Amino acid sequence: MPVNTDRFLADLKTLRRFGAFKTGVHRPTFSPQDMEARHWFVSRLREEGLQAEIDGIGNILGRSPKPGPHLLAGSHLESQNEAGWLDGALGCVAALHLAASGLPVDVAVFSDEEGHYGSFIGSRSFTGILEESEIDALANKYHGKPLREALREAGLEGRPRFGVEPGRYKAFLEMHIEQGRQLEGQGLQIGVVTGIVAIWQWKITIEGQQNHAGTTTMAERRDAGMAAVRLLAMIDEEFPRHCAERTVWTAGRIALSPGAPSIIPGRAEILFQYRDVDIEVLRRLEVVLRRCVAESNRRERCTATLEAMSLSTPAVSDPALQDALADAAEALAPGKWQRMPSGAGHDAQYLARVMPAAMLFVPSINGISHHWTEDTKDEDLAMGMRVLAEGARRVLEG
Amino acid sequence: MPVNTDRFLADLKTLRRFGAFKTGVHRPTFSPQDMEARHWFVSRLREEGLQAEIDGIGNILGRSPKPGPHLLAGSHLESQNEAGWLDGALGCVAALHLAASGLPVDVAVFSDEEGHYGSFIGSRSFTGILEESEIDALANKYHGKPLREALREAGLEGRPRFGVEPGRYKAFLEMHIEQGRQLEGQGLQIGVVTGIVAIWQWKITIEGQQNHAGTTTMAERRDAGMAAVRLLAMIDEEFPRHCAERTVWTAGRIALSPGAPSIIPGRAEILFQYRDVDIEVLRRLEVVLRRCVAESNRRERCTATLEAMSLSTPAVSDPALQDALADAAEALAPGKWQRMPSGAGHDAQYLARVMPAAMLFVPSINGISHHWTEDTKDEDLAMGMRVLAEGARRVLEG
Repeated sequence: MPVNTDRFLADLKTLRRFGAFKTGVHRPTFSPQDMEARHWFVSRLREEGLQAEIDGIGNILGRSPKPGPHLLAGSHLESQNEAGWLDGALGCVAALHLAASGLPVDVAVFSDEEGHYGSFIGSRSFTGILEESEIDALANKYHGKPLREALREAGLEGRPRFGVEPGRYKAFLEMHIEQGRQLEGQGLQIGVVTGIVAIWQWKITIEGQQNHAGTTTMAERRDAGMAAVRLLAMIDEEFPRHCAERTVWTAGRIALSPGAPSIIPGRAEILFQYRDVDIEVLRRLEVVLRRCVAESNRRERCTATLEAMSLSTPAVSDPALQDALADAAEALAPGKWQRMPSGAGHDAQYLARVMPAAMLFVPSINGISHHWTEDTKDEDLAMGMRVLAEGARRVLEG
Repeated sequence: MPVNTDRFLADLKTLRRFGAFKTGVHRPTFSPQDMEARHWFVSRLREEGLQAEIDGIGNILGRSPKPGPHLLAGSHLESQNEAGWLDGALGCVAALHLAASGLPVDVAVFSDEEGHYGSFIGSRSFTGILEESEIDALANKYHGKPLREALREAGLEGRPRFGVEPGRYKAFLEMHIEQGRQLEGQGLQIGVVTGIVAIWQWKITIEGQQNHAGTTTMAERRDAGMAAVRLLAMIDEEFPRHCAERTVWTAGRIALSPGAPSIIPGRAEILFQYRDVDIEVLRRLEVVLRRCVAESNRRERCTATLEAMSLSTPAVSDPALQDALADAAEALAPGKWQRMPSGAGHDAQYLARVMPAAMLFVPSINGISHHWTEDTKDEDLAMGMRVLAEGARRVLEG
């Protein structure tokens, strides 16, 4: 039975109505809009003959009644605040339509990939690395509601949490929008993901001395803000000499205390991260970063300290799965696909720890994501669905 | 009648109890603590035989019954939040004790020098350059209460505002703590202020493009945060080549939007100021700043714009008044005084526009001000009071 791309697009557009915000959606994890979307998705899974439930962390598992071997496919349903309609939703609806096309595919929806409460709590729960004590400790990062309270309000308290049934799955597949402009820029329709970059996130704290901006001479100052500026300028010069081709680095936040026009900043806090698919590159850049901080402490009258916030491991896509998806892409969209890394994190990186995993990208119009204007052409969505189904068929037969 | 420094110190210590916070005070403008301090000060002025009232902007004027010529002296009573006990209070109590010593001195307390609502509204009102429309528009910068509402709650609504009586004053004198470490560092007790620096305050806004920190390649980025860092690093290199000996410059605030670890900042806002006593230096540095911004716009894929927030005029102390204070200092504290600029703004800079004005500094322990640990030794406070009184006597006789 071929995949029905019209019904696939229709389901995507129905899902878009839950928490509709301008042309995007606002579906924070466990909000009423998000829970409505989850319940609707469970009902759609059941309509397609899957045995579907929501578990105690908000994950959905729709089990195929077909005999094995099975594939697992899916993504997430909640969105960032006031964000796009496709991020996450696309991979869930695509998985639904793999199953609807008659393939032996279980469908998974992983909770809170967008991190309203924690870091990948859904896929980490499913793959067995989320402790109850972490659930106890987490709270919503925007409004502070404890995760336990949110789960109770969503009616999920006390439910068991699903895990990976040993021996059931041959592989995990996740379809997603690219969230960048590489595909669109080259006129391509499909990206076969070679790996998911790791993010090494650091906090740099610089301690100086808060003082009056008029009465403290330049020679007397210990200005934490200017020390931060000079350190970031040094990193900006050093990183290009040591990075790889697709490494990215970002200082997303610079906060000066107290942040008043006439007070010399006594303290600066920088959130600095870099991403790469190669662990050796990540390690090399850590050495460079530590050298820059040491050099700052040698030069400045302020003290900079470096703290690792999170150092994740790059996830490499399974080569055989990549080849199956690449062959499917070449068959259906000849010359209009490429292999590429994923610069963003995805649930697939946790699934890759317990089974072969791979991802398929479709283009993002203007590269926009995490914004309500996020979009992808219908023809690219449909092509992605067909390539995913053809790839899944090849994996199951291979 | 010589000045009574014991009673002067006792009054200072009584005033310290209004809004006591640790070893400092918390007396935000028009707060209950601040109004209690004002009413107590009015009663002290009346005890010393002055005719004293609070006006419609919160200024206090205590008029001497003695025949002229008169001096005017004073400062401000409110404090920064959780700040020191001497800033402002010292100049008010010193003025009270000039009058108490029998000199023909009017005592002025200028409202909100600390800028909880506006910029020098008290001294600007007294010198005739505060419009009713500005009073209508102002609100508390911490909690947003409109100035009109605060004046009503303080019982000041509808009162007339005092102005400078033409021909009444020979000069204005203000005693103040140094708020820096120059005097203490050199073992001096008195600073005769040569001028008050002007502050040229700018806002630099940098527009880039907000984007995903993982999926946007370095080549594609328009990172407003890094453009801000490079611009500030350029200013940090250029300013020392063009500044004067005591010029200071400060980037007190750098705000990146949205300020999240995984989002490339789309916008940066910098509050940047420099101060000098010489208008030519201020103008030269404006040229340097504009050149740096232009150079940034030439190099970067972001757009920097420069907006003048306030460009004040340096206030020069009257040379004859300086000499009178210097002679008094040399007579009472031989070799333990110097002439020096004021790096902070003071009410005296507005008074200097309408009459000869001068200031006297006493040392700040560790240079600390705008903090509850602010302090000055009793012996330095007393010496300052004696030199101020002797200087005032010389001015009146001169």
